[in-house]
Amino acid sequence: MQRYLPFLDWGRSYDRETLGADLVAALIVTVMLIPQSFAYALLAGLPPVLGLYASMAPLVLYALFGTSRTLAVGPVAISSLMTAAACGALFAQGTPEYAGAAVALAALSGVMLLGMGALRLGVLANFLSHPVISGFITASALLIAAGQLRHLLGVQAGGSTAPELVPALLAALPGTSLTTLALGALTIAFLLWARRGLAPALRRLGLAERGATALARTGPVIAVALTTLATWALGLDVAVVGEVPRGLPALALPPLDPALLTQIAVPALLISVVGYVETVSIAQTLAARRRERIDPDQELIALGAANLGSAVSGAFPVSGGFARSVVNFDAGARTPAAGLFTAAGMAAATLLLTPLIRHLPQATLAATIIVAVLGLVDLRALTRVWAYSRADFAAQAGTILVTLLAGVEAGLITGVGLSVALQLWRSSRPHVAVVGQVPGCEHFRNVARHEVVTAPHVLSLRVDESLSFPNARFLEDYVYDAVAADPRIRHVVLVCPAVNAVDASALESLEAIIHRLSDAGVTLHLSEVKGPVMDGLRRAGLPEHLTGEVFLSQYDAFRTLAPEAAAEAMARPRLAEATQARRGTGRAAG
Amino acid sequence: MQRYLPFLDWGRSYDRETLGADLVAALIVTVMLIPQSFAYALLAGLPPVLGLYASMAPLVLYALFGTSRTLAVGPVAISSLMTAAACGALFAQGTPEYAGAAVALAALSGVMLLGMGALRLGVLANFLSHPVISGFITASALLIAAGQLRHLLGVQAGGSTAPELVPALLAALPGTSLTTLALGALTIAFLLWARRGLAPALRRLGLAERGATALARTGPVIAVALTTLATWALGLDVAVVGEVPRGLPALALPPLDPALLTQIAVPALLISVVGYVETVSIAQTLAARRRERIDPDQELIALGAANLGSAVSGAFPVSGGFARSVVNFDAGARTPAAGLFTAAGMAAATLLLTPLIRHLPQATLAATIIVAVLGLVDLRALTRVWAYSRADFAAQAGTILVTLLAGVEAGLITGVGLSVALQLWRSSRPHVAVVGQVPGCEHFRNVARHEVVTAPHVLSLRVDESLSFPNARFLEDYVYDAVAADPRIRHVVLVCPAVNAVDASALESLEAIIHRLSDAGVTLHLSEVKGPVMDGLRRAGLPEHLTGEVFLSQYDAFRTLAPEAAAEAMARPRLAEATQARRGTGRAAG
Repeated sequence: MQRYLPFLDWGRSYDRETLGADLVAALIVTVMLIPQSFAYALLAGLPPVLGLYASMAPLVLYALFGTSRTLAVGPVAISSLMTAAACGALFAQGTPEYAGAAVALAALSGVMLLGMGALRLGVLANFLSHPVISGFITASALLIAAGQLRHLLGVQAGGSTAPELVPALLAALPGTSLTTLALGALTIAFLLWARRGLAPALRRLGLAERGATALARTGPVIAVALTTLATWALGLDVAVVGEVPRGLPALALPPLDPALLTQIAVPALLISVVGYVETVSIAQTLAARRRERIDPDQELIALGAANLGSAVSGAFPVSGGFARSVVNFDAGARTPAAGLFTAAGMAAATLLLTPLIRHLPQATLAATIIVAVLGLVDLRALTRVWAYSRADFAAQAGTILVTLLAGVEAGLITGVGLSVALQLWRSSRPHVAVVGQVPGCEHFRNVARHEVVTAPHVLSLRVDESLSFPNARFLEDYVYDAVAADPRIRHVVLVCPAVNAVDASALESLEAIIHRLSDAGVTLHLSEVKGPVMDGLRRAGLPEHLTGEVFLSQYDAFRTLAPEAAAEAMARPRLAEATQARRGTGRAAG
Repeated sequence: MQRYLPFLDWGRSYDRETLGADLVAALIVTVMLIPQSFAYALLAGLPPVLGLYASMAPLVLYALFGTSRTLAVGPVAISSLMTAAACGALFAQGTPEYAGAAVALAALSGVMLLGMGALRLGVLANFLSHPVISGFITASALLIAAGQLRHLLGVQAGGSTAPELVPALLAALPGTSLTTLALGALTIAFLLWARRGLAPALRRLGLAERGATALARTGPVIAVALTTLATWALGLDVAVVGEVPRGLPALALPPLDPALLTQIAVPALLISVVGYVETVSIAQTLAARRRERIDPDQELIALGAANLGSAVSGAFPVSGGFARSVVNFDAGARTPAAGLFTAAGMAAATLLLTPLIRHLPQATLAATIIVAVLGLVDLRALTRVWAYSRADFAAQAGTILVTLLAGVEAGLITGVGLSVALQLWRSSRPHVAVVGQVPGCEHFRNVARHEVVTAPHVLSLRVDESLSFPNARFLEDYVYDAVAADPRIRHVVLVCPAVNAVDASALESLEAIIHRLSDAGVTLHLSEVKGPVMDGLRRAGLPEHLTGEVFLSQYDAFRTLAPEAAAEAMARPRLAEATQARRGTGRAAG
């Protein structure tokens, strides 16, 4: 029971001190969340009030079901962009159908996450490799920033990919509203300064360290207040948020049109997985700092409940937000109750503040978004990944390019496809070494790297990879080629210390190798097969097919098949290199 | 040059004796191929003469480009079924558009194979695991046999999946033509007897062993001749092949309508890959018997050329045929010239025999097909695979079910998707063992299986799998959970003898683990890292991030981090079990 309702655990020991800490953290997060929730609603192409709605019920539900003590959920940049892309592909922004599609996305995403949680399928998130998710976030952040430029310039220029956005922006450039641009530029400058300079400035004014850090987070709220005031007082001619309905959301079942659900199934899945990966990664990072544990499968349930909460509030998909979770953690939140108090704070804001934001300029929100997402752009990751692995680089660069050129869904699918294909490609070309005996000891090493003893009629091959369908055929080809190339070979020994598994394809390949070698008058032996692998091979009856033997160690194999060579190798003095090899006895390295 | 034109190699040493052997083999294969080519054209839903056309140019081109000395290409059952499914989904059988689509399939498949060959992408065939291909062949054979029943019954009953075929056959049953059924049943009985009983019968009649075996292959030709004769002489009321145009195919560029090519792209890719996998597998089997080599990438080029040859002859996709290749091999074919002679034989047959087959009953061809494909059904594979691996069984059973219920393309795609997903699933849950020192020696084994020495402040984890994106998060979770569960832990050592690679995702996970453990006051060390893996980690700067050390052996690590425990373990007497462990020093097994 406690596993599915974690609040039963932390709720029991809740005391006054914890309450105080949670309340302070909730206050700071609320102040930060108000402008963010407006901004991300705008980014999703929805009325600003929906950002507030997405910041109440989801927080309450996550507090009840989540296992992270400090994660803060709500509207976030990437999910909002993906929502805009999915809904924009079906309906025009501003129509009730568009808003309905966003609600349906949240609902379907919630159901999918709950389903995966019930089946404990958190492992599905593994399909998104680090380079792909990092490339996707970078490209999405660039798309988001480019998409917000129109609000900074005060022009109309739509589009969800670079080839749509760039020409539209260039064409609209002559119509730039200088007032809007000046307001937006000033806001960006202020926000950038506030990030670095506000806390030191506050400390110089005499504030205590912790208070200064906390107050420095209020930069966006100050920007919102000042620009709204300026627009109202000076009657500036800029696009504003306009009338915002007052009051709490009326909870309602989301519309469930089967045709619509089919159309949004893929985007909903992608939003779910991306949101989940981000959520778990943030939760893990924060939990580790206090040596707490999170349960990745329960996080699926919590995030699913949060999204259903957003759907019944009439809002859009939510997930864990990195910046606000860190703020929550730093501000001293101790339990998910801080999330409950934040939700209460947002409810109060909805009731009290909505009349005040009528004159809030859209340029201010665009500036907030741009400053927030530019921190997500990590182009240096490309050089880092390039230096480490060409295959990972290909997946990352492919994800970035396709996301920018063809949109978020195509980019993400490309990234997943590429990383899976490259993973199979990699395991399809395993490292195989011909090994020989190191003089003076029982160890065997790569003939290409070491001075070792071999016998012409015995070929010992060490395969440094599990045997499975991506490399089954490679092994067949490799063994035949080696045997066809040297007519002296009478015995082939597969040395298997690095073989962690053998699947049914590789099993059939082994049988094919045995029979085909036998046709060519060559015997196949195995050595150093791991216990669990040998159990499986035995169950499949491989030892009966085997023309040769299964040796416990490669030395046993060599001693049996080439006794003279083995004895001669043993009699030779041990080399310095061999001594070093001896030190790392367990290593199967070259 | 010889690599791309293998005949430059075997052509040089061609002599009279080889010529004699090749001619005999070609004669036997020609006699076998004539009824097969009619039958597979019928199976593909095309006029029988196209089967002859598909057995000339493709054989010549394969002889020029192929690296197998004995492989026989031409129309085969599975490719013909896939052709019928692809063309039948677009056009009605018997229309010129249907025939045009078959030609386009052969052309596109040829271009795809040539492209893969040029890029040396033979490795792509790895995506088809053994259980998937075997399940696919079984299901296809069942579909083929069910589809041919209508010709045996002499009724109309179309369909390309079990849910279409079974009700259609049941509904058509009352209209069965008893003459047709009797003829078909007799033919099946004769063919089944000919397979087993004809050779012994011929030997009893005094024929030499080799002659009897060769003549026994003529069962289908005898059946064709006898039933045609009977139909003509007795004026039987059965469906016959009818008028067949005489003469060789007029070579022509295939029609290349871009819209059509888009529609057939996926089927063409599937036909290419399935045909290629079968071809290479047959070629490998036969080459191994004579210790010859084939070049899998060159086989792509040869098969591509063969398919283009079929397309310009106006025919349909071809690939290597198992039965006829074995016959060719057994009959003593020595070089691909046997294929050239077979093509000449088929040309002669086209010129001379076409007037004679006008009265050939369709039921005879259906009987030939049914007898041929029932040999491909291998339902026992299901039990074998089930016993060996549940994941492989799931992929195989999924392939069979979806192929039967939804058709060949859906079945194949499901199979590939399932095996890839299950491969990732498997590598996402690697075997991780907590290890301790075996008393009296320097070896470390699983604490769950052996009596070993550990220290409470040192956690040594051996991961039996390469670290990559499918398991990166698993490792993070595993390490955090272990550390969070035991507050005494100060050091974590990852023991890496079975880690053959670390991709960029796993690298980031390692960095995350280092930082998060460091936040929790725990140091991370590595031991027994393979040379190439360590090179990569060094290039990525991991050692600088590492809070602990990289030890050459796990014993070095334990001796450094827990000197008392290591010394105590060393001082204890070696157990019998430990001695055994010592024998298999290279083994990293449990």
